[in-house]
Amino acid sequence: MPVIRESLVQKLYKPGIGQELWDFANGIYPICRSISGNGVRETLGHIKQKIDLQIHEVPSGTQAFDWTIAPEWNIRDAWIKDPQGNKIIDFKKHNLHVLNYSAPINGKFQLADLKKHIFTMPDQPDLIPYRTSYYNINWGFCMSHDQLMSLPDGEYEAFIDSDHNPNGSLTYGEYFLQGESDEIFLFSAHCCHPSLANDNCSGMSVNTHLAQALTQLQGKTRYSYQFIFAPGTIGSITWLSRNEDKIKRIKNGLILSCVGDPGGPTYKRSQAGDAIVDRAVEKILRDEEAAPNIVDFWPYGYDERQYNSPAFRLNVGLLLRSRFGLFPEYHTSADNMEFLKPDALEKSYKHTLQIIDILENEYKTMNLAPHGEPNLGKRGLYGAIGGDKKAYDANLPVFWMLNQSDGQHSLLDIAQRAKLPYERIHDAAKVLSENNLLEVLND
Amino acid sequence: MPVIRESLVQKLYKPGIGQELWDFANGIYPICRSISGNGVRETLGHIKQKIDLQIHEVPSGTQAFDWTIAPEWNIRDAWIKDPQGNKIIDFKKHNLHVLNYSAPINGKFQLADLKKHIFTMPDQPDLIPYRTSYYNINWGFCMSHDQLMSLPDGEYEAFIDSDHNPNGSLTYGEYFLQGESDEIFLFSAHCCHPSLANDNCSGMSVNTHLAQALTQLQGKTRYSYQFIFAPGTIGSITWLSRNEDKIKRIKNGLILSCVGDPGGPTYKRSQAGDAIVDRAVEKILRDEEAAPNIVDFWPYGYDERQYNSPAFRLNVGLLLRSRFGLFPEYHTSADNMEFLKPDALEKSYKHTLQIIDILENEYKTMNLAPHGEPNLGKRGLYGAIGGDKKAYDANLPVFWMLNQSDGQHSLLDIAQRAKLPYERIHDAAKVLSENNLLEVLND
Amino acid sequence: MPVIRESLVQKLYKPGIGQELWDFANGIYPICRSISGNGVRETLGHIKQKIDLQIHEVPSGTQAFDWTIAPEWNIRDAWIKDPQGNKIIDFKKHNLHVLNYSAPINGKFQLADLKKHIFTMPDQPDLIPYRTSYYNINWGFCMSHDQLMSLPDGEYEAFIDSDHNPNGSLTYGEYFLQGESDEIFLFSAHCCHPSLANDNCSGMSVNTHLAQALTQLQGKTRYSYQFIFAPGTIGSITWLSRNEDKIKRIKNGLILSCVGDPGGPTYKRSQAGDAIVDRAVEKILRDEEAAPNIVDFWPYGYDERQYNSPAFRLNVGLLLRSRFGLFPEYHTSADNMEFLKPDALEKSYKHTLQIIDILENEYKTMNLAPHGEPNLGKRGLYGAIGGDKKAYDANLPVFWMLNQSDGQHSLLDIAQRAKLPYERIHDAAKVLSENNLLEVLND
Repeated sequence: MPVIRESLVQKLYKPGIGQELWDFANGIYPICRSISGNGVRETLGHIKQKIDLQIHEVPSGTQAFDWTIAPEWNIRDAWIKDPQGNKIIDFKKHNLHVLNYSAPINGKFQLADLKKHIFTMPDQPDLIPYRTSYYNINWGFCMSHDQLMSLPDGEYEAFIDSDHNPNGSLTYGEYFLQGESDEIFLFSAHCCHPSLANDNCSGMSVNTHLAQALTQLQGKTRYSYQFIFAPGTIGSITWLSRNEDKIKRIKNGLILSCVGDPGGPTYKRSQAGDAIVDRAVEKILRDEEAAPNIVDFWPYGYDERQYNSPAFRLNVGLLLRSRFGLFPEYHTSADNMEFLKPDALEKSYKHTLQIIDILENEYKTMNLAPHGEPNLGKRGLYGAIGGDKKAYDANLPVFWMLNQSDGQHSLLDIAQRAKLPYERIHDAAKVLSENNLLEVLND
Repeated sequence: MPVIRESLVQKLYKPGIGQELWDFANGIYPICRSISGNGVRETLGHIKQKIDLQIHEVPSGTQAFDWTIAPEWNIRDAWIKDPQGNKIIDFKKHNLHVLNYSAPINGKFQLADLKKHIFTMPDQPDLIPYRTSYYNINWGFCMSHDQLMSLPDGEYEAFIDSDHNPNGSLTYGEYFLQGESDEIFLFSAHCCHPSLANDNCSGMSVNTHLAQALTQLQGKTRYSYQFIFAPGTIGSITWLSRNEDKIKRIKNGLILSCVGDPGGPTYKRSQAGDAIVDRAVEKILRDEEAAPNIVDFWPYGYDERQYNSPAFRLNVGLLLRSRFGLFPEYHTSADNMEFLKPDALEKSYKHTLQIIDILENEYKTMNLAPHGEPNLGKRGLYGAIGGDKKAYDANLPVFWMLNQSDGQHSLLDIAQRAKLPYERIHDAAKVLSENNLLEVLND
Repeated sequence: MPVIRESLVQKLYKPGIGQELWDFANGIYPICRSISGNGVRETLGHIKQKIDLQIHEVPSGTQAFDWTIAPEWNIRDAWIKDPQGNKIIDFKKHNLHVLNYSAPINGKFQLADLKKHIFTMPDQPDLIPYRTSYYNINWGFCMSHDQLMSLPDGEYEAFIDSDHNPNGSLTYGEYFLQGESDEIFLFSAHCCHPSLANDNCSGMSVNTHLAQALTQLQGKTRYSYQFIFAPGTIGSITWLSRNEDKIKRIKNGLILSCVGDPGGPTYKRSQAGDAIVDRAVEKILRDEEAAPNIVDFWPYGYDERQYNSPAFRLNVGLLLRSRFGLFPEYHTSADNMEFLKPDALEKSYKHTLQIIDILENEYKTMNLAPHGEPNLGKRGLYGAIGGDKKAYDANLPVFWMLNQSDGQHSLLDIAQRAKLPYERIHDAAKVLSENNLLEVLND
């Protein structure tokens, strides 16, 4: 028989954890990640210091549904030297300077020819863009448009010491917590972007710390929890192709990405749009924040695209602060550690706990004294002097719980209808349950 | 076989009845009512002069679901005398001066001690508040905050001649009209507030006169009608506990409260929200009034809380003019007979008749010439000269009835879809029915 | 097995066809039509020059559901002469001068008596109104209010050379194109108004040219198409009464009326409101036009009243530019050929083709690589350099098609959810289908 569980936020949330979240992101920010290679391995190594991460290596050439795992990419150095032999850009100073997954090159080029391999952003001329070329092998560099414009004609030397190893592998990590039920909730963060703080380090940091916190309740949560750290697209498709049994158990999930900037919050709904995760996230964001931006699913973004594809429909939403693609720092060198804020990371972390709180307590309830209202006064649950215009506010969540507990409505249903913070409905349910006025129904 | 019935408003509504409604409220306004006692009995006596009210006495100590009927309260006198022996407040001048259901007291108190038993409203300093203490026995007085502030220190004498009789009873009245069908529509008004004009006298007056009017059609209405006059909360719970058979027959109902002030109108929906009573009230208020305020159910208010509780779900809404709790006179001495307006009472009375009209005619209809439009011209039902841009307005209700009478829609459905006043749809249905173009379906 | 069909617009739409549509309307504008008579025959003769129209004559006195076909009306001449013998109005100059279906008259009247038979519009004093008197036999004239006001007292001579022939007939035309499926889509235009350009000539012109264009695809369309040209109300009721077998095959249709003025566009939904024709028209108008006015069905207007009546419910909507009854030229002499614009006619014509395009391609689709997204890159279907903020727009329709093709959604469903132009979704479906990534399901 289920009972109203205690708040996970009360148990697991440590105010001030934002700095720890920021520090962890800062530790992995400098690493040059890609869809495969040592950068991913090094990143997962940081995570493994916090949780007992299972790390998988899947050989290049392996088939994953419609995809084939590409050769593993590694890079050691890259630069361009000007006609005078000065390094004008240097991979070691900023790894965005290299087209991610670039082929190696070592040669001399007239500026006009070199330019065909240089990517800039004319409308954000002082920033280095992030560019990739995974499925059409090319070599290239990225730099600020201002710098490109300042280059004199002449012969330049371009050097990229990288390789695509067909005997390499794709690397991803996962962590699983079995709960009382076999039903799984999925949390996933991508780990394939190089030095982009919000767009990958923030998500990995929150995902890691959330897994670490929930470990304290191992075996005592209602649901099982699956944490994934994988390269975007090919990583999640690979995970899906190797976990057919688990997939059947996943009913809901969240992608964590761009969860550390000062904007937002934003929630992109699952394809279903009204899954329990959608309702829970929307409720928490509306309870907690001034102007949450809740947007419908569209088939562009992060790995929610894969988890929500027709064969899976796992009801996975995307939690963000600013919406990806819309903040000016997105996919540029300005998405750095200064852009990341401890308090924004902390909010994201707290919200995920609050969302889990809803899920863990999502039961239908039954009023055990349903004939009219029960006499709350004799149980000390009602203000003593009646008639006061302002007295009733404190009693509202209790009255809502009593009125709506007919076996057809859950705590979240009731909180939504009552337009009251979920936390107050949860508290009322707990008090009524302790006074034998409320029963929680089995699933 | 049902037919389109004639309008109840046309049969029963007497324009100008507002003054009669006001006079009746004025007659019961001075009585000191509470959840039990002689004030309730005296009030029901007034009602019995209008309709053949059945009055019930339920002994103190009787169990009613989760509640026990409290000892009967009666009060004879109460006052406070200042250090000079002057009565500074006197129950006989205004019965709100006593905390309702107050314990007796007879003693002398320093002002500071007396103040612990005096209730005022600092934000409405010139008014006496209405306060009760039913389930936590206490003694107390209410007065204006201005008066309290003006009291000099010294020894005061407090006197309340009241008693709580464990061998007393709770009193309520009811009146029943059997119709053609066993299905019951319920009208209820509370009778437990002392001198509060809008918040109890107005509802009792409209409920009484409505019952009186419907008595003229005894046995000829479609539905049966149950009228209740009972103390709030405990009274309706007691009625519910003693009428299990009738409860099964109640499908809809209305609480009448605060139906006489110049604001509003307001309608608070039943818990179901889309019951036929909800749709009928909303239609009439939108047809008849400039800016009706239609609000969703919430579990605070009058006896709709009990009738809509999980064990009953009787689909009972609440009809008001101003919304209780929001008008400044609410639960103060300003809720007096000056605040009550004959024309507001008359509107409420007329609206209840119009609402009943909808219910009594709520049948699905069938067009008997459904292949295209029937030839209205040959029946004299259509304007003779076509092409006139303005001519069609008069025909619209007829065309809507014909188009929508496919056995799936009722008069109210059609009036809602057509966005036409219900009365015009009713008239069109009557005309078409008389011309054998329309048939009314059985339930 | 169905496939994504090619665009009808691409096959059949000839830019610049607006002038041809206007010229055709201009050719039939001068004819004096009514609900029967030679004017209708002459008009249908024009149409028969474009398509192989089947013309029916239904004898006066024939029963059609609730109606009897009236005697056939013909008119040869009509005028009023002033006291000096000058013709002040002359049917040969404007056929709106005669009350349509007027009885004959030949007599002298004092102005005051004559006025009882003269119709004007005081609020549009310079225009001749259009008035009819079909079912209440009368004689009469229409003129501008200014002219009426200028008439001196005296004896006037009124002459109408018309007759009502009980041995005549009602005339209508129809044209049918059998498609692969027996399911029929209906297009209908009324042909009973005299010299009113927008309100009847425009609809007949677009309906004729659409039928002519679709003839090129005879036997190759998915649906069968029924074109009707009939007098309003009695004509469509007559057609319905004689085509019971076809009626069962009609699932959707469109009335074309007032499709040539510079306002709008307007769409009046079918009675059902959410039939596929309603969704298709709304999508096309929203894709193509700045501010389409989409209005719910109401039982006044053109023959959609008959097709949507309870016995038929054929889901027939009404496509217009300006909404009938609301533009000032409506039912006046100002609804002339100057009011009709070639480009407005062309838009209406193109929209009907686009609407048919949706219907012909309305299949549910199945993604054949539904496990995550397929690798579009290896098929050359994806931009080569990733990370560009603006690159994704071009791919959006493809991603939407892939994500929503789960066998539950059609192309129109997907275009609506994606909020993308239908044409782009259609194109994406075609590309995916050609790449064996998409399958179209049978109905």
